[in-house]
Amino acid sequence: MSVELSEAKELIDLHLDEHSTQELSAYDLAQHLKTIKNHDEELYSSYLKRLDPESLGDVAIELPESLLKDVIETLPSEKIVKAIEELESDDATDLLQYIEEIDEDKAKELFDGLDKDNQAEILRLRSYDDDEAGAYMQTELFSAILAEKTGDAVVRLRRQKEAGELENVSQLFIIEPDRTLKFAIPLEELILFDFSKSLEQNLKSRDEEDFKPHTVLDSDDIHDVVGIVEDHDLNVVPVVDSRGILLGRITADDIHDFIQSSATEQMYNLAGVSDEAEEDDTLVGAGRARAFWLMINLCTAIVSSFIVGMFDETIASYVALAVLMPIVASMGGNTGTQALAVTVRRISLGEIEFSDAKSVLKREVSISLINGLIFGVVMGVIAWMWFSKPLLGVVIMLSMLINLCLAGFFGTIIPLTLKKFDIDPAVGSSVVLTTFTDCIGFFSFLGLAKCMLV
Amino acid sequence: MSVELSEAKELIDLHLDEHSTQELSAYDLAQHLKTIKNHDEELYSSYLKRLDPESLGDVAIELPESLLKDVIETLPSEKIVKAIEELESDDATDLLQYIEEIDEDKAKELFDGLDKDNQAEILRLRSYDDDEAGAYMQTELFSAILAEKTGDAVVRLRRQKEAGELENVSQLFIIEPDRTLKFAIPLEELILFDFSKSLEQNLKSRDEEDFKPHTVLDSDDIHDVVGIVEDHDLNVVPVVDSRGILLGRITADDIHDFIQSSATEQMYNLAGVSDEAEEDDTLVGAGRARAFWLMINLCTAIVSSFIVGMFDETIASYVALAVLMPIVASMGGNTGTQALAVTVRRISLGEIEFSDAKSVLKREVSISLINGLIFGVVMGVIAWMWFSKPLLGVVIMLSMLINLCLAGFFGTIIPLTLKKFDIDPAVGSSVVLTTFTDCIGFFSFLGLAKCMLV
Repeated sequence: MSVELSEAKELIDLHLDEHSTQELSAYDLAQHLKTIKNHDEELYSSYLKRLDPESLGDVAIELPESLLKDVIETLPSEKIVKAIEELESDDATDLLQYIEEIDEDKAKELFDGLDKDNQAEILRLRSYDDDEAGAYMQTELFSAILAEKTGDAVVRLRRQKEAGELENVSQLFIIEPDRTLKFAIPLEELILFDFSKSLEQNLKSRDEEDFKPHTVLDSDDIHDVVGIVEDHDLNVVPVVDSRGILLGRITADDIHDFIQSSATEQMYNLAGVSDEAEEDDTLVGAGRARAFWLMINLCTAIVSSFIVGMFDETIASYVALAVLMPIVASMGGNTGTQALAVTVRRISLGEIEFSDAKSVLKREVSISLINGLIFGVVMGVIAWMWFSKPLLGVVIMLSMLINLCLAGFFGTIIPLTLKKFDIDPAVGSSVVLTTFTDCIGFFSFLGLAKCMLV
Repeated sequence: MSVELSEAKELIDLHLDEHSTQELSAYDLAQHLKTIKNHDEELYSSYLKRLDPESLGDVAIELPESLLKDVIETLPSEKIVKAIEELESDDATDLLQYIEEIDEDKAKELFDGLDKDNQAEILRLRSYDDDEAGAYMQTELFSAILAEKTGDAVVRLRRQKEAGELENVSQLFIIEPDRTLKFAIPLEELILFDFSKSLEQNLKSRDEEDFKPHTVLDSDDIHDVVGIVEDHDLNVVPVVDSRGILLGRITADDIHDFIQSSATEQMYNLAGVSDEAEEDDTLVGAGRARAFWLMINLCTAIVSSFIVGMFDETIASYVALAVLMPIVASMGGNTGTQALAVTVRRISLGEIEFSDAKSVLKREVSISLINGLIFGVVMGVIAWMWFSKPLLGVVIMLSMLINLCLAGFFGTIIPLTLKKFDIDPAVGSSVVLTTFTDCIGFFSFLGLAKCMLV
């Protein structure tokens, strides 16, 4: 037995042992199961069967598609239904969606097995778009009406926690009888309340304004929600509908996950990689998604080749041009990528938008103009020395100046424009940008050379 | 008065008005102050003077360097000292550091004005490296010993909160008399305790194991801390030293900030941009940092030019080579960037490290080999048709295959190696990578052409 396998086995055994205190996180548990499956399929299914419904749900969410497939094929539907019911509503919705992507009929069967309340919650959460706050909320809440005695609310909290209905509670939400959200009381305040008095009496003795919550709408963009959570250092934010009715809450860990995965998505999009396809365990999925962007890049590279081809006679009569032209293109590409990365990131952090284009362009074009001047002169002198031809130095200096300056312009305007049309500013902008910088670089350099040198 | 200015003025006025309930976050307040300063310097200083010490500290942290400079030049030192004392220890340490970067003497004067406890805490927090958990913790804690009556601990919480010593409390930390951390009790559990009994009695009636906290060491890498917080969906994590003594806690909002800023740093590093220099308000700082990477890129571009120069006679006798060679380089660069982005991100998410090199390389090289084959054949056929020369097609096909395959290899091995030597895998890896892909692309294409065509 390999070291890797026996280590994974030992850790899971400890986790399953009721007398042991070694608990694994769902993520770690999923990782170890993956290791075991790679070595010993049978042992793997026996472990799957031994997981209790509560762990099973948490682990299933963390499993890659191929392993989740085993879960739905190996385990009885009743156990999976139970596992889904043990999850918080947002996680239950996600898990059911993952299962649906593998086997639609199975997902339907499992959904039908859930109790009516769970079904209704999942249906509602699924009605939201991916970028709506509602899609990230959980509907399990600790709430009370103003007239309730504080102690009674606490007793209810105990019951709900014991029944496994509530986890990670950090606020008590005070609602009207029609569920309109009035106040949010952090537990660090609630614990100081007089338990024998009503919530209303307790609030009266303090400044009610301190308990006005920061809320978000279920239809709000999740990016804006992240901004609010960050600006106000919130642990949890209540979600209400347009009438102010309390629907759910978004917790800090959901925000974490969103920040991490959107940073990954952005970095991958910039590089022409699909974050979803990369999560796939097979090479084919990831390879196909990357090939798509390489295909686009090939097309644009051919376009810039055509531009070079327009000047084939010039190059034939002066080969130094072929030697130097990659430098102009490369420097333009780099300058543009710098402006692009800064602009994409600042858009995603909510620092700038299309209406700021003027001031952002001023800044970016100024920087690239200055660098264009500096590196144009440096490269001009180098080319002059290298090929002992002063005019060649002037040509490369001018073309670098033009290319770097326009690279800064396009590196800024491309993502701002994509954002304006509600397209992710990172998607494909890198390929579009280098098309511009290559074409402008080759055209300005070879064109100037044709006019001035030959 | 411009719309922008009057809007900012109105919002700040509302914020400062004690009868109004409109509160701005420190971040928004800082943004509006920036707007006002751009329009009206005098109005700006008058607002600075009107901020109470508590808001002042929070806002000062959010201000860009040039505006923070105004704060330390305009306001009396006593007020700034008070503002620093109002902050949590981690924020106080940060603010003092920002001030030190502007004016060392002033920072020393302010530090000397702090009370002894604050001084000691700041000195300790400053002793940590930037990537150590200790640098991110705050030392303000709600703690108690086992023998204490639960109700007494709660009374102490009230007193500490009223004195402004504690904020965002979500757990009670149970310590030994020597401050060794024993348990962490979430407030959602503490509120269910019998207040008339000691904490020990309350714990006895439950499963003590449930209250064993996930801890991190003050010397732990902050990246690992983020991993633990994410895996276990924590709101707060206690920090202990090697003997288990409780030192402080790291809260979810600090983790948020860290995740966001390290994603920005990574994206910027990949593009050859410095995140610190970009925060600077002046163009010079940002421009200089970018110029550094452009300079490195210029050097590496000249190296690849030399390689092209080695084949100047081949190119002179066959200009189609100059037309096609940018395609080979561009496709190699893109393929490598895909592998690079995926590897850098997976390293930073803790999914892979150097010891996984073999399996990661296998995956990445396989993908780029397959794409090399596909695009080699496609481009081979295109080149053959375009220049009616079958051998030229074979040359570009082989060189694309070589270049894309090696691009996948270098895109993976460069960041893994940097990480192995404890260097940020994103820094400069993009420039180093394109040096390889350009050189290999030009050398393989022109070299093969020289052997097979001319």
